[in-house]
Amino acid sequence: MQVIQSNLGSDGPLHARIATAVRESIRSGRLTEGTLLPPTRDLAADLGCSRWAVTQAYDQLVAEGYLESKVGSGTRVRHGAAATGAATPGAVRAAVPRLDLSPGLPDLRAFPRAAWARASRAALGAASLQDLGYPPAGGHPRLRAAVAGYLTRVRGAVVDPEQVTITTGIRDGVAAVAGALVAAGHRRLAVEDPGWARLRARIAGTGMVPVPVGVDASGMLTDALAGQPVRAALVTPAHQFPTGAVLAPHRRAAAVDWAVAVDGLLIEDDYDAEFRYDRRPVGTLQGLAPDRVALAGSVSKTLAPALRLGWVVTPPAWTEPVRALAGEAALLDQLALADFLDSGGYARHLRLLRRGYRDRRDALVAELERRLPGCAVSGIAAGLHLTVDLPAGVAPARVVAIAAQQGLAVMDLDSCRTAPDPTRPGLVLGYGNLPDRAVPEAVAILAAAVRTAAAG
Amino acid sequence: MQVIQSNLGSDGPLHARIATAVRESIRSGRLTEGTLLPPTRDLAADLGCSRWAVTQAYDQLVAEGYLESKVGSGTRVRHGAAATGAATPGAVRAAVPRLDLSPGLPDLRAFPRAAWARASRAALGAASLQDLGYPPAGGHPRLRAAVAGYLTRVRGAVVDPEQVTITTGIRDGVAAVAGALVAAGHRRLAVEDPGWARLRARIAGTGMVPVPVGVDASGMLTDALAGQPVRAALVTPAHQFPTGAVLAPHRRAAAVDWAVAVDGLLIEDDYDAEFRYDRRPVGTLQGLAPDRVALAGSVSKTLAPALRLGWVVTPPAWTEPVRALAGEAALLDQLALADFLDSGGYARHLRLLRRGYRDRRDALVAELERRLPGCAVSGIAAGLHLTVDLPAGVAPARVVAIAAQQGLAVMDLDSCRTAPDPTRPGLVLGYGNLPDRAVPEAVAILAAAVRTAAAG
Repeated sequence: MQVIQSNLGSDGPLHARIATAVRESIRSGRLTEGTLLPPTRDLAADLGCSRWAVTQAYDQLVAEGYLESKVGSGTRVRHGAAATGAATPGAVRAAVPRLDLSPGLPDLRAFPRAAWARASRAALGAASLQDLGYPPAGGHPRLRAAVAGYLTRVRGAVVDPEQVTITTGIRDGVAAVAGALVAAGHRRLAVEDPGWARLRARIAGTGMVPVPVGVDASGMLTDALAGQPVRAALVTPAHQFPTGAVLAPHRRAAAVDWAVAVDGLLIEDDYDAEFRYDRRPVGTLQGLAPDRVALAGSVSKTLAPALRLGWVVTPPAWTEPVRALAGEAALLDQLALADFLDSGGYARHLRLLRRGYRDRRDALVAELERRLPGCAVSGIAAGLHLTVDLPAGVAPARVVAIAAQQGLAVMDLDSCRTAPDPTRPGLVLGYGNLPDRAVPEAVAILAAAVRTAAAG
Repeated sequence: MQVIQSNLGSDGPLHARIATAVRESIRSGRLTEGTLLPPTRDLAADLGCSRWAVTQAYDQLVAEGYLESKVGSGTRVRHGAAATGAATPGAVRAAVPRLDLSPGLPDLRAFPRAAWARASRAALGAASLQDLGYPPAGGHPRLRAAVAGYLTRVRGAVVDPEQVTITTGIRDGVAAVAGALVAAGHRRLAVEDPGWARLRARIAGTGMVPVPVGVDASGMLTDALAGQPVRAALVTPAHQFPTGAVLAPHRRAAAVDWAVAVDGLLIEDDYDAEFRYDRRPVGTLQGLAPDRVALAGSVSKTLAPALRLGWVVTPPAWTEPVRALAGEAALLDQLALADFLDSGGYARHLRLLRRGYRDRRDALVAELERRLPGCAVSGIAAGLHLTVDLPAGVAPARVVAIAAQQGLAVMDLDSCRTAPDPTRPGLVLGYGNLPDRAVPEAVAILAAAVRTAAAG
């Protein structure tokens, strides 16, 4: 049978090569359904091999369902073992902008590769046999304790390690809390508008309906919560995304009072609180009301999103349902982070980052004032992004498109809103992943794009 | 105010220490709601410090919501900033049995720490800046390609890297497929009975109702699928869990025909197919019908569960919905696995493991025949577990309990069934994680437990 002979590879034992040749011929359609295969004796003679090898190959393919063999009628290609399409080449990842002023990424150049490699090696060396098995629900006790200590010391949180759940990031943690709320009968979750659209989408994916609540210079309009059919709210108290507002003290109090009154839950998205430049960080809302707040954080902004490591601290009643839904972080990475937190390496890295980001922010703000003097800049006290108001009548989508043509990525403020607001056009600029030396060029391109859009 | 002075720590700047002392006093209930704090001038005098430090501390706590400050009425502990319980010490992990003959774990001693450390280091060194950002949906293209190549070569699968989704393990992958089925309107999923209870539970967590379908020596009773109100089925064709049956060729064909007829989907759980001792591994069901089968696998049995790395290969229509639900594996670990697969290190490791497991299985079967001669042993051709029939009238739960008292973990076959079957008492013995030298002692304890249970 020529189709088999011509497809016989040269690697491995002959029976396996015969099986592969026949399998491939069936898949490619060269051997069609119902085709009678040569008797083993004949094919062995054709191939100049033992009959045993052919029998083995046929048996294998019968076992796999490609062939069927009936006493007295020989071996045929089974009906249903049809041809399948050939593999298409793997797709290429999305193009990376030459200059990235869009929010979401920290400075990937600053990832402490050597320190992380050391922590990983230490973790691998120190891992017990049990540590190599299935990670315990909620994460490794050592990391839970390290995170609890860190959040208590640095974020003014009230954390029992037993209430910490290790996650694969903030979105994972928030989605797990949202899923637990859905399981408990919640159907709607208040979210800030504007807010982080990808998180909103992830929440919607749990079956929860996001209910937008406005934001002003004092953060989420907590008074509006009472009028909504919700008993849970997602809030960014330390640094509202994207406006940069800090939730004002009276709003913090109002949020907690509301949660108590409706017997509800606040989800605190503490996504970039580590970076506050002009005053001390504000402690978490969770520290104020640990029984009413689930606190979600991660190392995506402080180390790298690639690590997929985060946490959520929950009131005790929510811990088990959240653990059942949270993603599972690799255990060796959990141990590496515990080592990095406990050794002080994490705190040292944060101090370095904070200085670098503050300098970059200052440079960016200065460039923006110089080249876009009419455009107000806000939300600069903390985090890795700021917002820029555009002149009335300038379409942000057009600015984004023109800048993209020059290799610069920026974000339209409207993409954070649940509905566009043409009366307040603006951009969100993330400076986490823009090299310092690229700041002047990026702002020059942006200013030109704004001028072009205004003229167009 | 004595409560503040006596709680003043000695680390850090004074204003932070004052803030911490006040915060802790409020949390512990020593400062109750509404309590008026001393004027900043007085407290500064008491503490012998500058008034500035006290003002800073009060401001911080007002910002955090612990205190409220009104012109003309001083600073008070805010209503609602109530005491919270003290942290309880972290819980200890569940005790590990001295001798582990329960199924689920591979040989954790065999984890190739040095080779994995090398692959991790190589991955960290080779990772691009972009690789340190958020991992692309579905996983890193390099790992998807490596997995596709591996499954094509070794598991007779038909895999386009574009249809591979990297997961955090088989349960994650199966749950993602189940979730995608739920989103597409499926409400029920056929599962093998007996089967792996934790996977059943995870499926139920997606909102899917598992519908049990029986199993015999030829694997799942695929003829029974047609009578069920289901259009999707989870199956372990290579090595049924826990019976060890290989899905017979006519059943493979019947399963595919059924899936085509109902326009449905088969989920192939390929959890331990790498280990087959007495003949070549049977190719995947997916290879036979890539348009009708989602193939889930992981490295939990071949490397270590702690890595939380797996994959699911889906027909194109299911890939996007599954990716939206799959867990996110750490990207550096993804690159390390790609390196390990592509370098041949993985294949070498598998060969070593296969030899070791086969020898251990032989030793275990020999000991069982010697010490429990009346008890039939089945499912030994592959995988890391086997089943043992118990004499009629012996309660497996009692055997499990008596063995546990001697430090030996074994599994009751009933715990894999959706309903206990007292007419067919049996045990599932996993030999993955039992050291070779412990085999005689483990079987001796087991035999004694069976005798005691039979006598009791």
